[in-house]
Amino acid sequence: MAFDVRYTDLAGRIGRLDTPHGILETPAFIPVVHPVKQSVSTQFLKDMGFAGVITNAYITLRHYGDDARKRGIHDIIHYDGVVMTDSGGYQVLEYGSVEVEPEDMARFEVDIGTDIAVPLDKPTGYGLQYSKAKEYVEITLRNASRTLEVVRQERRKEQEWKEEGKATTTTTSMSTSSGEKLNNNSNGLSDVDTLWAGPIQGAEHLDLVDYSANALREMDFEVMALGSPVEVMESYEFATLAQMIAAAKRAVPAKPLHLFGAGHPLTIPLAIALGCDTFDSASYMLYAKDGRYMHANGTARLQDIAYLPCCCPVCSSTTAKDLKDMEPERRIVQVAKHNLYVLKAEVDSAKQAIMDGRLWEHVMQKARAHPKLMEAVEFFKDLKMLESGTCVFKDKALFLYHPVDQHRPEARRFRSMLSGFKTAKKKLILYPDTQIHPFYSTKDFASMRAKFADAQICSYNPFLGIIPAEVSDIFPAAHNLIPRTSRNGRDYPTFAESLNGFLSQNHFEEITIVADDFMRQIIDSGAEMKAEGAERIENNSMAKIRVIDYEDGVFLRL
Amino acid sequence: MAFDVRYTDLAGRIGRLDTPHGILETPAFIPVVHPVKQSVSTQFLKDMGFAGVITNAYITLRHYGDDARKRGIHDIIHYDGVVMTDSGGYQVLEYGSVEVEPEDMARFEVDIGTDIAVPLDKPTGYGLQYSKAKEYVEITLRNASRTLEVVRQERRKEQEWKEEGKATTTTTSMSTSSGEKLNNNSNGLSDVDTLWAGPIQGAEHLDLVDYSANALREMDFEVMALGSPVEVMESYEFATLAQMIAAAKRAVPAKPLHLFGAGHPLTIPLAIALGCDTFDSASYMLYAKDGRYMHANGTARLQDIAYLPCCCPVCSSTTAKDLKDMEPERRIVQVAKHNLYVLKAEVDSAKQAIMDGRLWEHVMQKARAHPKLMEAVEFFKDLKMLESGTCVFKDKALFLYHPVDQHRPEARRFRSMLSGFKTAKKKLILYPDTQIHPFYSTKDFASMRAKFADAQICSYNPFLGIIPAEVSDIFPAAHNLIPRTSRNGRDYPTFAESLNGFLSQNHFEEITIVADDFMRQIIDSGAEMKAEGAERIENNSMAKIRVIDYEDGVFLRL
Repeated sequence: MAFDVRYTDLAGRIGRLDTPHGILETPAFIPVVHPVKQSVSTQFLKDMGFAGVITNAYITLRHYGDDARKRGIHDIIHYDGVVMTDSGGYQVLEYGSVEVEPEDMARFEVDIGTDIAVPLDKPTGYGLQYSKAKEYVEITLRNASRTLEVVRQERRKEQEWKEEGKATTTTTSMSTSSGEKLNNNSNGLSDVDTLWAGPIQGAEHLDLVDYSANALREMDFEVMALGSPVEVMESYEFATLAQMIAAAKRAVPAKPLHLFGAGHPLTIPLAIALGCDTFDSASYMLYAKDGRYMHANGTARLQDIAYLPCCCPVCSSTTAKDLKDMEPERRIVQVAKHNLYVLKAEVDSAKQAIMDGRLWEHVMQKARAHPKLMEAVEFFKDLKMLESGTCVFKDKALFLYHPVDQHRPEARRFRSMLSGFKTAKKKLILYPDTQIHPFYSTKDFASMRAKFADAQICSYNPFLGIIPAEVSDIFPAAHNLIPRTSRNGRDYPTFAESLNGFLSQNHFEEITIVADDFMRQIIDSGAEMKAEGAERIENNSMAKIRVIDYEDGVFLRL
Repeated sequence: MAFDVRYTDLAGRIGRLDTPHGILETPAFIPVVHPVKQSVSTQFLKDMGFAGVITNAYITLRHYGDDARKRGIHDIIHYDGVVMTDSGGYQVLEYGSVEVEPEDMARFEVDIGTDIAVPLDKPTGYGLQYSKAKEYVEITLRNASRTLEVVRQERRKEQEWKEEGKATTTTTSMSTSSGEKLNNNSNGLSDVDTLWAGPIQGAEHLDLVDYSANALREMDFEVMALGSPVEVMESYEFATLAQMIAAAKRAVPAKPLHLFGAGHPLTIPLAIALGCDTFDSASYMLYAKDGRYMHANGTARLQDIAYLPCCCPVCSSTTAKDLKDMEPERRIVQVAKHNLYVLKAEVDSAKQAIMDGRLWEHVMQKARAHPKLMEAVEFFKDLKMLESGTCVFKDKALFLYHPVDQHRPEARRFRSMLSGFKTAKKKLILYPDTQIHPFYSTKDFASMRAKFADAQICSYNPFLGIIPAEVSDIFPAAHNLIPRTSRNGRDYPTFAESLNGFLSQNHFEEITIVADDFMRQIIDSGAEMKAEGAERIENNSMAKIRVIDYEDGVFLRL
């Protein structure tokens, strides 16, 4: 199984997943299509640029029976791209159970030529008590293990046939129990087997998610698939969703991660930033049937809309009024198409944000769409896992707005790098960062340098901390843009930390602080900082400290 | 002149402007079309839903001469919607001067059947020194006055003809100096004269903007048009732009306000929120020629784009790669069309936000697109003018995220209303607001009410201040959603004010404060608040104060 990661930002990544029906570029939204009654054609989905769809193997089995094995799932749904099949887990969630064994379902999924298959799982849903959730996790794991056993058996048989020269094509299909080869759908396929996705259950019980993900990783599933977020999302519990994804991701950081049922516009940037590679949903159609119109910030009731805030082909050729007046069946299809355009644009926006190294900005802006989403992204500040995917150098300047931005990986990494900075100099000048970068190219700096050749000159800003002038050209010290607004020192604990660290690493005898409003607050009321700083300075044996308020041309008075 | 305002939010408004060629619904983006060489057809613009366009009367005069009088501007540009004409001011800005007198330009603009005309002005641009800017403002005012004189003369003549039975149609056209009636374009037009827009100049010299706007208001122009923001926007000085608009708006709050040259996606929500009704720009084409692709957060160089983050008909039928590989002439038109779709969607999103009463949320989210835009919206907190347009009751809950949101009109108005609240009760209980609204419907409240029948019970939250339980159902006390994140007491000066005000209006002898983290900070470190509060309480002759930390079920321990 090849999953080739090309670009990353935060935990988000642009990758290429190799499947029997070609490459699926990720992150990808995978629309749910119904194997029997699908009112938005799969041709339309393909033309829109959806390279993968998901359909339901259980319904296919019930409706088409063995005929499905003959035709193959791609023929049934008229779609020659990547097809993922869910196994009936959703039906389990809806109806309690399905009358099929995991082994039979596994054989069926492979026989119909699925590209990405899911073992029959038992979703935990949301709000299930712990013991019940644990039971479901165990059942799912047992099913998963039984499934892989069947898969391995069949792969071995397939291998034996090949070796005996019986296999005439490099097909991915397996035999039915009778041994007869039924799948006619295998010509022109790449030499890749059906990928199996391990269903991670546990929902809001994060230790179960962790347990479940680890167990599936050990079983060696090629793809991971996190279950049951639909209810979490419908109740706008985005913070819970974020924690679920993070728990799964921590356990299985490298493998492709699918998120089941994630079709709300607000979850897409969140899920991508946290490292989900694919996500499916029928929301485009379900919402359309319910008169819900998607937009970049969520959904709206069609009846509440006076203007269509969208430029998709549907909305560009109609008005809100005409859409509302449309005959229902036609309206549902039109709204469903519109919803698909919105979801696609959300994914593409996030992908472009990854390319631009602006996924943090993108997600934080999105978070302003709903207080519950804001709660979810606040949690990013504690997520170390966002660091490894974030490039060490970026072309574009960081936009730093709010206290949460001090925790973005680039800022964190910069401060951590600087925490080891040592100088033998005995004089220190701290000066507010300017909007001209690097700091050493400013005339303020030149003037100070000329006058105090023996001083360590540093600039400072609330997000990056203390920046020695000699490194003020490295990323992101010279690559950031900060709005000129008032800030509260207490909202920037990492700044006080950076300042303390810098003072404790070095032994200055004379310290001159040119204080802007922010630094003034840190000095006056940043209690811990002040106490520690004062103590530090005392230990440094009587460093002289001078604080001067910043104003234009203040460097001339130093 | 009829300008009918239907809905408002902040200073933004949805209105209908009556012109000779029908109603222009506002806010409206008015694309610039070239009277001679226009590569995106006006038919396309009309089909897209642009009900008005703007073109250049000076170029029309130079190129078509008197023939333009015969054909009329609508025929020349093949467009039967609302046509606005600029007078050559832009050419003045580019080339220093134009060889035409204001009176001649005025006659020409009316003769060609313009719906909204602009007198020949002398734009101040951006960065002009004060004395020069003032000189340009004076020239513009003189021209404006000379223009209106011609208009009045001609309207009088027209009236005389009508009375003498010479006028056979209710035409809006005027005669040329020869007295011959040339405009053949007047059939089927509504009984409205050409509207004249008074060109407000002064740019970043806000007192000149104010002076200019007041002078034009006194001259009785039907529309106001704020000049010269192009350079301001191109240098991303959105804060300056916001101040310019606010200055113009304060002087002329009621009349329709046009903003010249505002075609950057980021300026649209800003301009609408501050009360601009129409704005024109050629940016869609200029940017396209320059390889700049618009998106909701600004523009990107086409070469930097890997994924098209857009679902417009152009982007839905091509890929970034194909667009880049396109033959340049075709690409320019395609990108120009895409840019128009983006601009249109921006306007429609803002309009829908007005309808939803969510313009504040919309603009604040947008502001996260660029630090310079964030600086511009910070200025909203001091803008009293945003209040009158903001509805007193709204259907939807306010989303309150950051300190700036304490200044939104609904919160400000609520606190101001409550500042007069008086009670004769001697006991006060302050309790953190819950996510269940209204507060009086919570079980916490019921329990406290049962136990302390004689107490004034209030909830509190950082954005709205103190909320007496008896009014906890009125908007927005019961209609807000606040993310559960940590907050800094010092960032909410209006809270301390509200608390102080409440204590000073009333005479409590026993005060119980159930303090969440936020209130704890206010009590511990909100210096001014604490001092004043303490003093107040002393003056109240020994009120007993008890502070209890909030926790689940704390109401049982009171």
